[in-house]
Amino acid sequence: MVAEVVSIGTELLLGQIVDTDAAYLAQQLSALGINVYHRATVGDNLQRAASTVRQAVSRADLVILVGGLGPTMDDLTRDVIAEVMDAPLVRDPDIAAHLGRWFAARRATMVETILRQADVPAGATALPNANGTAPGLLLEKNGKIVVALPGPPNELIPLFETSVYPVLRERTAGERQVIRSRVLRIVGSGESLVEEAVKDLMQDANPSVAPYAKTGEVHLRVTARAKTEEEADALTGERVARLKERLGDVVYGEDETTLEAAVVALLAEKKRTVATAESCTGGLLAGRITNVPGSSAVFHTGVVTYANESKVHLLKVPQALIGSVGAVSPEVARAMAERVRDLAGTDFGISITGIAGPGGGTEEKPVGLVYIGFADGGKVTAEKHLFSGLRADIRLRTTQAALNTLRRTLLKAAA
Amino acid sequence: MVAEVVSIGTELLLGQIVDTDAAYLAQQLSALGINVYHRATVGDNLQRAASTVRQAVSRADLVILVGGLGPTMDDLTRDVIAEVMDAPLVRDPDIAAHLGRWFAARRATMVETILRQADVPAGATALPNANGTAPGLLLEKNGKIVVALPGPPNELIPLFETSVYPVLRERTAGERQVIRSRVLRIVGSGESLVEEAVKDLMQDANPSVAPYAKTGEVHLRVTARAKTEEEADALTGERVARLKERLGDVVYGEDETTLEAAVVALLAEKKRTVATAESCTGGLLAGRITNVPGSSAVFHTGVVTYANESKVHLLKVPQALIGSVGAVSPEVARAMAERVRDLAGTDFGISITGIAGPGGGTEEKPVGLVYIGFADGGKVTAEKHLFSGLRADIRLRTTQAALNTLRRTLLKAAA
Repeated sequence: MVAEVVSIGTELLLGQIVDTDAAYLAQQLSALGINVYHRATVGDNLQRAASTVRQAVSRADLVILVGGLGPTMDDLTRDVIAEVMDAPLVRDPDIAAHLGRWFAARRATMVETILRQADVPAGATALPNANGTAPGLLLEKNGKIVVALPGPPNELIPLFETSVYPVLRERTAGERQVIRSRVLRIVGSGESLVEEAVKDLMQDANPSVAPYAKTGEVHLRVTARAKTEEEADALTGERVARLKERLGDVVYGEDETTLEAAVVALLAEKKRTVATAESCTGGLLAGRITNVPGSSAVFHTGVVTYANESKVHLLKVPQALIGSVGAVSPEVARAMAERVRDLAGTDFGISITGIAGPGGGTEEKPVGLVYIGFADGGKVTAEKHLFSGLRADIRLRTTQAALNTLRRTLLKAAA
Repeated sequence: MVAEVVSIGTELLLGQIVDTDAAYLAQQLSALGINVYHRATVGDNLQRAASTVRQAVSRADLVILVGGLGPTMDDLTRDVIAEVMDAPLVRDPDIAAHLGRWFAARRATMVETILRQADVPAGATALPNANGTAPGLLLEKNGKIVVALPGPPNELIPLFETSVYPVLRERTAGERQVIRSRVLRIVGSGESLVEEAVKDLMQDANPSVAPYAKTGEVHLRVTARAKTEEEADALTGERVARLKERLGDVVYGEDETTLEAAVVALLAEKKRTVATAESCTGGLLAGRITNVPGSSAVFHTGVVTYANESKVHLLKVPQALIGSVGAVSPEVARAMAERVRDLAGTDFGISITGIAGPGGGTEEKPVGLVYIGFADGGKVTAEKHLFSGLRADIRLRTTQAALNTLRRTLLKAAA
């Protein structure tokens, strides 16, 4: 099967948003063994969009349209499908009723144009959208499949997984050449170092191994093609095992596992709890930990002591200590970690104090200087980092380093 | 002038990387007043790439090719230009010598295929690349301009700015039509309601007004085309003023101003301070506030009381209250807001307690139920929300609502 993805939206052509949906869909289609030879983007213009979609339908078996399903007059995807597939729009009373209930439940006013989202090309199936008002669409006609999905990723991804993937999986069962990928996620080692360590394992075309640098971590993508999922999985499995053996514990997880999820899982496994005291990251570390479902078993308290007075008042860090060595110092980092652990009654306390910029740096304590304090029983330590990048990068890299400190301690801890 | 951007690379069609170059180039072209109606992506296949580029050359004056300029056999962009523009490749001795020096300086081995990067289509100019080995290319022939740029953004962006932008600026000077945009950022009103309120102001083609729904906010992009920046700015300025008058204070800011930046600016202007107490958002609200440079003047303390015991222990919320009405309740939200304000000694206290999911919901208290508590002098209130979406959406929408509550209070406050 050959597929083509067409993104519809002037905002994409103006560069106002980055098209992450296209990459997501490409990965999904690739995993199904569906070939994608072209991708196109076109603006909110009926004639040009119809012409682009007509070309896609002429050279692909499956065309996925992204965006343009909202309620406004700019949202043309329904009209494009109607025109290209010769399938006039029909208002679906069930969807209209559902939209009415959706707005009523939120005590919001439903304007008339909202009902445009209940218009369905003749013969198409509406695909329910759990996270928005615009349903997706699936039309099979003249040997072609046309799918339309809403643009926001939090709507597109669940909708694709629930309603489109199962259909495509069934349709490709006979001819399938499977492409399977696994991603190793690495923290605490740079891209060049990782590549140097595993260079000889990156030479083959199948399975292929490709490195990607992310902020504060490196990903290695291992991809294999085969006739069956089992064969492809055997190829990736063998390579992943060798990479892991070579790289050791800088590999913190696989695929979609985030560093915070890996740390929360380790805390749960080792039956430990942690409390956080943050200065320059201002709550982001706690925010990342609590973004993991189930984190309440291992995390219950954090403090954001953004000002010196707050460190003194809430954490009882001695004023004299801050006065003598400064808030951004190993001594204050250690005091914060110890005090938040005692305050919360947890096993570990972790603290962050640093200068995220853009202002506030000096020659002695430049922007990017961060101390991470860590209290573990009687052992209270502080590590020094000097991060580069913009404020947001420095804050993200700092939370990466703090989570990695916690992770490395947990790897060594008894259950 | 009409331009089309073609990205060449199988890794894009497989979704292994997100195409951020396309968004960057789109912004640059738009700022030059160059129209972009189509964008295409094609894999590393000579026939398909040539056919895609031929179509682009047929309908645009300027075609920018991205990627495929490296040294490997997969890097086909030079061959594609040679074929489509009938401009056979000629090895450039200066580039070859430069490549030799580049490798010698790095004590690296230069394999023969590296020299492919010294091949230039007849009549084309090589554009020096300060951050990599592959030069860019610029070919003018038969009234068309074809530009080829390397894919890595750290090579593409400086190369475009140094060698391509000046040429395009000069070429568009005569016919220049400047495109200028402003974005109004709106919180607390849905996309359809906004559109309903300003429908009559959205009818014109110049300036155009387009709505975009984001998680927890709506953006209206006002775009004008004119001969000069001044004329374009006058057109957008008039429309922005009318939209703001119509919409009132749901407009929180413009262009790149985030909601947290608007709130921090208002706090500073009105000389007020705020403290946060977060349960289900786990530090994200504090994290957003402290992401604003200079926020330390208005925010110094936050607590993350993720568990009931932490609400009791750290905030002294009565255990009996939680026992009788539950932690997710207006009563507990109010107590948290009041207590964190008193603990921190700030003007305002704002609290969040809710159920972010995916687990933990009941029929009576479903996933998405959130109470935001707000303490302002003797007035302590709680507002109820029911958000939909995934865990991360609910958490983000919750912080939007909390920031908006704070903002609305500040708008009414005396300086």
